[in-house]
Amino acid sequence: MVKNTKVNAGIIIIGNEILSGRTQDTNTSTIALWLNSIGVVVQEVRVIPDIEKTIIDTVNKLRKVNDYVFTTGGIGPTHDDITAESISKTFNLNYEIHKDAFKILESYYKLGEFNEGRQKMVWMPRNAKLILNPTSGAPGFNVENVFCLPGVPSILKSMLGGLKNRIVGGNPILSHTISLRTVESEIAESLTKVQDNNKDVEIGSYPFFQAGKLGVSIVMRSEDKSKISICSSEILKFVNEKKIEVVNR
Amino acid sequence: MVKNTKVNAGIIIIGNEILSGRTQDTNTSTIALWLNSIGVVVQEVRVIPDIEKTIIDTVNKLRKVNDYVFTTGGIGPTHDDITAESISKTFNLNYEIHKDAFKILESYYKLGEFNEGRQKMVWMPRNAKLILNPTSGAPGFNVENVFCLPGVPSILKSMLGGLKNRIVGGNPILSHTISLRTVESEIAESLTKVQDNNKDVEIGSYPFFQAGKLGVSIVMRSEDKSKISICSSEILKFVNEKKIEVVNR
Repeated sequence: MVKNTKVNAGIIIIGNEILSGRTQDTNTSTIALWLNSIGVVVQEVRVIPDIEKTIIDTVNKLRKVNDYVFTTGGIGPTHDDITAESISKTFNLNYEIHKDAFKILESYYKLGEFNEGRQKMVWMPRNAKLILNPTSGAPGFNVENVFCLPGVPSILKSMLGGLKNRIVGGNPILSHTISLRTVESEIAESLTKVQDNNKDVEIGSYPFFQAGKLGVSIVMRSEDKSKISICSSEILKFVNEKKIEVVNR
Repeated sequence: MVKNTKVNAGIIIIGNEILSGRTQDTNTSTIALWLNSIGVVVQEVRVIPDIEKTIIDTVNKLRKVNDYVFTTGGIGPTHDDITAESISKTFNLNYEIHKDAFKILESYYKLGEFNEGRQKMVWMPRNAKLILNPTSGAPGFNVENVFCLPGVPSILKSMLGGLKNRIVGGNPILSHTISLRTVESEIAESLTKVQDNNKDVEIGSYPFFQAGKLGVSIVMRSEDKSKISICSSEILKFVNEKKIEVVNR
């Protein structure tokens, strides 16, 4: 893992549709890239079913070992949306109508359209802080270090910007990629030496197939730009010696 | 969760590149869909970093509460590929050259190409069972109920078929989807009643956006086809009463 000033997060993806394989999760990547940009490292992701006890247990475990926890999914109006009630139980808070959320949705919908189904979306843990939703009205919410977001990727994406002032990160995690026309086994030994020389840089090696050709992307991650530069030079040195083609750097 | 004959699995995605958001995991969905088809329900997915202690702890936790555990990633030739060694430690087995794997790769590569980097890929827990790789030679392996697969999606996909005889599932999990031109809040109440009447069917409700129009997919999952049919009729009954357009069923 990248060594940063140690601001960490866990992500909990709540939803049977991910576990069944029907839906491909994309929220992990969205949240992780955004967190990296504000200096927060994702330590762990868990995908769990829509089961109350599992939600409570998982949130309790992760909120104790992470600075921040993000949940996605289960905050809509249907019977399988049980995140808000589960989070209320996690923190021993009343599950009740949130007045500000009610006002937001009351004015969002046309007269008569704010029906019982939609009203379920304003039931939240008492005194939860709202996370505004510029796309579809219904807000997410935050209790202590736990932030509950919706599962629909486009809506989730639109809500992250509004969270920026509530998440205090470390230095942003920088990354630099060198892509080579080679295979991993050709560079494995040299790359191990570079990693040994540069313990503060996380070096990952990822094979790729592009336009019918094999290649390897070497990804360096650190919060220190100069350390990435040193690491990068060492890699380019052995790449040059081995006469490996650099695809991009 | 779908109630089936209770054959369950956990999936562990090993890789900093998923946690950093750089790479979008697709292996969860591939493995889950395949497991469903042979009657195995995925209970939990964890995405964890390339850290030995984390791998050992996570495998130990999940293998005790699941019939099967699948890991992806970390079995290539580079320094960040530490799954095989970590699994050896998990089971207190020697980490050593696997003779059959050695023979496979020795004959897979041209003379002189089976270099030190590639030879790393035949180091495995003693007596591990191989999982053959029809795409790129290097096999995965299996110790007790833990199956270790590569991270590259196309390679992983090609290896699942060879596992079929080693996984004993329950009845296949069947699913049926009804897509409606509506929004969730319009059907939430009726759908709750259907779920209450049909406790053995897992009913999920998923909003979608398609060709600029909103809709909701209702997904029913069960191992019992007749229970899905009953559930489906009840849904179509209220859909008809509410005059909601059925997109497909």
